[in-house]
Amino acid sequence: MARTGRRPGISDTRARIAAAARAIFAERGIEGASIRAIGRAAGVDPALVHHQFGSKEALFLQVMDLPVDLAGGVGTLLAGGEEGIGERLATFVLAAWDRPEVRPIMLGVIRSAVTDPQAAALLRELVIARALRPLAAGLGRPDAELRAVLAGSQMVGLLMARFVVGIEPLASLDRDTLASAVGPTLQRYLTEDLAGVRARGG
Amino acid sequence: MARTGRRPGISDTRARIAAAARAIFAERGIEGASIRAIGRAAGVDPALVHHQFGSKEALFLQVMDLPVDLAGGVGTLLAGGEEGIGERLATFVLAAWDRPEVRPIMLGVIRSAVTDPQAAALLRELVIARALRPLAAGLGRPDAELRAVLAGSQMVGLLMARFVVGIEPLASLDRDTLASAVGPTLQRYLTEDLAGVRARGG
Repeated sequence: MARTGRRPGISDTRARIAAAARAIFAERGIEGASIRAIGRAAGVDPALVHHQFGSKEALFLQVMDLPVDLAGGVGTLLAGGEEGIGERLATFVLAAWDRPEVRPIMLGVIRSAVTDPQAAALLRELVIARALRPLAAGLGRPDAELRAVLAGSQMVGLLMARFVVGIEPLASLDRDTLASAVGPTLQRYLTEDLAGVRARGG
Repeated sequence: MARTGRRPGISDTRARIAAAARAIFAERGIEGASIRAIGRAAGVDPALVHHQFGSKEALFLQVMDLPVDLAGGVGTLLAGGEEGIGERLATFVLAAWDRPEVRPIMLGVIRSAVTDPQAAALLRELVIARALRPLAAGLGRPDAELRAVLAGSQMVGLLMARFVVGIEPLASLDRDTLASAVGPTLQRYLTEDLAGVRARGG
């Protein structure tokens, strides 16, 4: 057989593995996906998947970074200033979930997280460690960690109600209306005095 | 064999079925439980379970009513007046989850709800239809349904973070501190102007 075009290199293989991984994570969730199945779908040896990306969880985090630039999103939100950052955060997250390459993967993460500790650790990593903690820390208030988790609890509950369980009227509310309804909650968790946290200190 | 004591009546059988159902729902979740297994555990014919309680979901709702009196809780919260009702609601829910006969069952409901539409309907029934909607309606603001779902999204997200995924520092925060941190969120959803909802109207 004549070889047409250039020989596939490392970056083609990585891209093919990443595409296969996104499809399989979306279809089966973290728990149901396997390095073996991803290798098979990408047409490569599973050992190569492991060699290039590490564990299944590490692979997940790396392919997830492609569709959503969390660090960039945090930077953009902080650059917009503190005023209204809660509503802009809600809009950013809801818009990301409206993207067809993001929603099925994140649905898989949330579904897996309630039963699988490794998927729960991934959800924590994506929502808290990479997004809300740096956001809260960038705003410079004390108790950034608790603020991040409180904001995360509202966002995850909202995403469950809207996309996982689909509870009306929230599920079909337009994005901007929903963002302005929950924005002040996120704003308060991230930037305002939290009575309970003060009470804990004294 | 001599029969000792009185003959078991309908109410003994119901109580035995209810106890078996609570144990099995707690252990396996809604999805994993079956009328057959509950009948076997209670020592009765599954047909009798069905005859006395109806479907698996109807059985679940009936046995759930035993540990948490939702209608009574809503009445007590409303009787306490509008001021601080968000924080009292958070305290009520967190206290219910600290009861050993409630938490495993509700963990099962939340775990099942993310993958099983029937369990999702149960979660909606318990959180929205029986608790938050009557609470919001009792407070007399427009958009009671949306207010209930927004408050529910915060409560379910909080319960997931605290009890299902166990994210620190939220997971081990004392109940009163946590209730005062999220109380104003629930207060706003239930009683205050929601900018987004106003915008939708005009």
